[in-house]
Amino acid sequence: MTSPLRLGIAGLGTVGIGVLRTIRRKADLLEARAGRPVRVTAVSARSRQKDRGVSLDDYAWEDDPVALARRDDVDVYVELIGGENGPAKASVLAALEAGKDVVTANKALLAHHGQALAETAEAAGRVLRFEAAVAGGIPVVKSLTEGLAANEVTRIMGVMNGTCNYILTRMEGAGLSYDEAFSEADGLGYLEADPNLDVGGIDAGHKLSLLSSIAFGTQVNFAGVELQGIGDVTIEDIHQAADMGYRIKLLGAARLTGRGLEQRMAPCLVPANSPLGQLEGGTNMVVIEGDDVGQVVLRGAGAGEGPTASAVMGDVMDIARGLRVSTFGQPATQLTPAVPAQAATPAPYYLRLHLLDKPGAMARIASVLGDAGVSINRMRQYSHAIETDAAPVLIVTHKTIRASLDEAIDAMTQTGVLADSPLAMRIEDL
Amino acid sequence: MTSPLRLGIAGLGTVGIGVLRTIRRKADLLEARAGRPVRVTAVSARSRQKDRGVSLDDYAWEDDPVALARRDDVDVYVELIGGENGPAKASVLAALEAGKDVVTANKALLAHHGQALAETAEAAGRVLRFEAAVAGGIPVVKSLTEGLAANEVTRIMGVMNGTCNYILTRMEGAGLSYDEAFSEADGLGYLEADPNLDVGGIDAGHKLSLLSSIAFGTQVNFAGVELQGIGDVTIEDIHQAADMGYRIKLLGAARLTGRGLEQRMAPCLVPANSPLGQLEGGTNMVVIEGDDVGQVVLRGAGAGEGPTASAVMGDVMDIARGLRVSTFGQPATQLTPAVPAQAATPAPYYLRLHLLDKPGAMARIASVLGDAGVSINRMRQYSHAIETDAAPVLIVTHKTIRASLDEAIDAMTQTGVLADSPLAMRIEDL
Repeated sequence: MTSPLRLGIAGLGTVGIGVLRTIRRKADLLEARAGRPVRVTAVSARSRQKDRGVSLDDYAWEDDPVALARRDDVDVYVELIGGENGPAKASVLAALEAGKDVVTANKALLAHHGQALAETAEAAGRVLRFEAAVAGGIPVVKSLTEGLAANEVTRIMGVMNGTCNYILTRMEGAGLSYDEAFSEADGLGYLEADPNLDVGGIDAGHKLSLLSSIAFGTQVNFAGVELQGIGDVTIEDIHQAADMGYRIKLLGAARLTGRGLEQRMAPCLVPANSPLGQLEGGTNMVVIEGDDVGQVVLRGAGAGEGPTASAVMGDVMDIARGLRVSTFGQPATQLTPAVPAQAATPAPYYLRLHLLDKPGAMARIASVLGDAGVSINRMRQYSHAIETDAAPVLIVTHKTIRASLDEAIDAMTQTGVLADSPLAMRIEDL
Repeated sequence: MTSPLRLGIAGLGTVGIGVLRTIRRKADLLEARAGRPVRVTAVSARSRQKDRGVSLDDYAWEDDPVALARRDDVDVYVELIGGENGPAKASVLAALEAGKDVVTANKALLAHHGQALAETAEAAGRVLRFEAAVAGGIPVVKSLTEGLAANEVTRIMGVMNGTCNYILTRMEGAGLSYDEAFSEADGLGYLEADPNLDVGGIDAGHKLSLLSSIAFGTQVNFAGVELQGIGDVTIEDIHQAADMGYRIKLLGAARLTGRGLEQRMAPCLVPANSPLGQLEGGTNMVVIEGDDVGQVVLRGAGAGEGPTASAVMGDVMDIARGLRVSTFGQPATQLTPAVPAQAATPAPYYLRLHLLDKPGAMARIASVLGDAGVSINRMRQYSHAIETDAAPVLIVTHKTIRASLDEAIDAMTQTGVLADSPLAMRIEDL
């Protein structure tokens, strides 16, 4: 009765194939809910011949995603290529300029070019949607943009990189070293081609920057995300944290303060019995705090064929139903520049260092902390390990700003009493 | 620039006042996000004079909500009166027939008349939205209807009555009897005027029936919800459950099986370390399982001025933005009648009884269970309490259907060896 919505899909990896499978398997369900058929008319990928377990015979083929994006028989361009530039960016731009709506799972693209692309989309009267770019199958973009639209968002937090959470969970659960858990995740295919995107916190930082834009009405500012990866976290840190009732998570947090926009993606200590602390393996969790709603917690699979396809299709179904919302919840031209906060909200910190066996070493550490205005809540020194001649020291500070702590760390590094670089992690009491 | 969206609000209790406050306090934010101003033009409540802490001077007053619903200067009628019939129903119908969109927080109204009202709305080309009717501030209706629209939903579960969860949590945490915890909740104003709506599971059952309709494409069938309240749960049950690693929750569960639609709202044993088991106090949680997305868990405040106003305003913002979805996710005329499942999916059960001190009593119990085909996984008998001359017996069955268990319970009641009625609760391993 009503005209079908015609999709062109570029990128036939796990997610692209998942989307194709969903559309083939559930055509009737999708039509009933959307009020019109949802069809794929054309696809594009690097190799036409590769066996993907799904026949592509029903779809027109384009070698060039830009050509796909411009096809007359495509209403919605679904970009699943990935990467912040190259064909992904070129094809999304081409689609918007050709008057197509766009659905993408590409967090890197939007973290770097979200503002420009959203402006392009709105100038062309098209929508650019990205539910699948953040936290896999969890409908967090929709919840934040629409369901909670009447809230002034006070804070967003989230564990949004399943690979990091898997590594940290395995270190804790199986007593693996970071390198062992990393290798295991690699063997399972959990890591990006450039693993630093995962373990360096970049991928999760991309996601956080997108949520920040919606939450605070600011232009996406990925460069303003304070990033710290999980590579320096040791099994010792995990055990120390557990002793104090905490677990270590790669945690994103964003809030708009009087001092500017605070965005951080870093390993943190969170209470073991909090929802975030209880998160296992590859699961993602996002916590949204709003002035009216209080705290809403959303949890689900952060990656994988089914969950990511579910999110892509959620956006497609919105378009099929005629639901059209601005990319970041309000017209892109109205988003204000995000000014990074010069000083983050104070918090207690966990500080782990390895002290050389020198007289007065401990006193030197305590003294530089005091000089920087960082006061100590608890401190423990363990006996020296014979093989390294270094004694682990664990310090929990009272609330401090990160800048003071960094000043102290700089100073203690220069005292010559440390065996290696200290690791500092924020303690987030939720 | 664009015309304001004009609301008429009927019912100025906690939620109505919350909505008024939000609209006054955040007019600029709402306008930026909606692309147009959101205004209240008229209100209605039982008493105009009552001091609500908010001035009503800016709004036209109507004594009769039906008159409010028909006003020319109202685009969206917001029904916050409550009750399944009476003025709530009359005014919602009047609004739809007068060509207004409707937002309501009224689960009882929709559980009983949702199908007819949705048909009326669609025939009139208007929308009828009810996010605030289910799980307070959690955007669960939107997530299910839109974000997860490409999923075949396999199961929905939820703790959706904060009052019951508060009572059960207080019994466990403070060692209170059911009556003591009930009185405490009453003193805090947590109970409905008719407490059975809460503790009888009716309110939560209403909510479940609405989610079922969206999830399974079936007409709302509240009469098909198997209901069991929490009034028979004792502190002894809570301790027994805890001993086995479980907690007792008033849990809703719905699934569409080959045998029909299964809908149940009943106290259940859930693993203490599961997300549902960890839920404290008045918090709500909904678990949605979809074929693509896997398990998505949503958690937040289930009631209160702010959270409920947030949900009402989420619907209002959708309407302001021109987002229009069918009430239950597809045209009401296409929803199929819900055929209640004749036999629920088998599960293990917890069975607690008090045995009189008679020879062979325990053998009689074991024998009637065997006769009904219910096999026993574990059984414990405790010593007789002197004051009652009855010994608590705790049985955990292997998986069985409820009908077999009920048959056994009937038979054991007739043996004359029981001091009171047994309590059976399903064990849900999530």
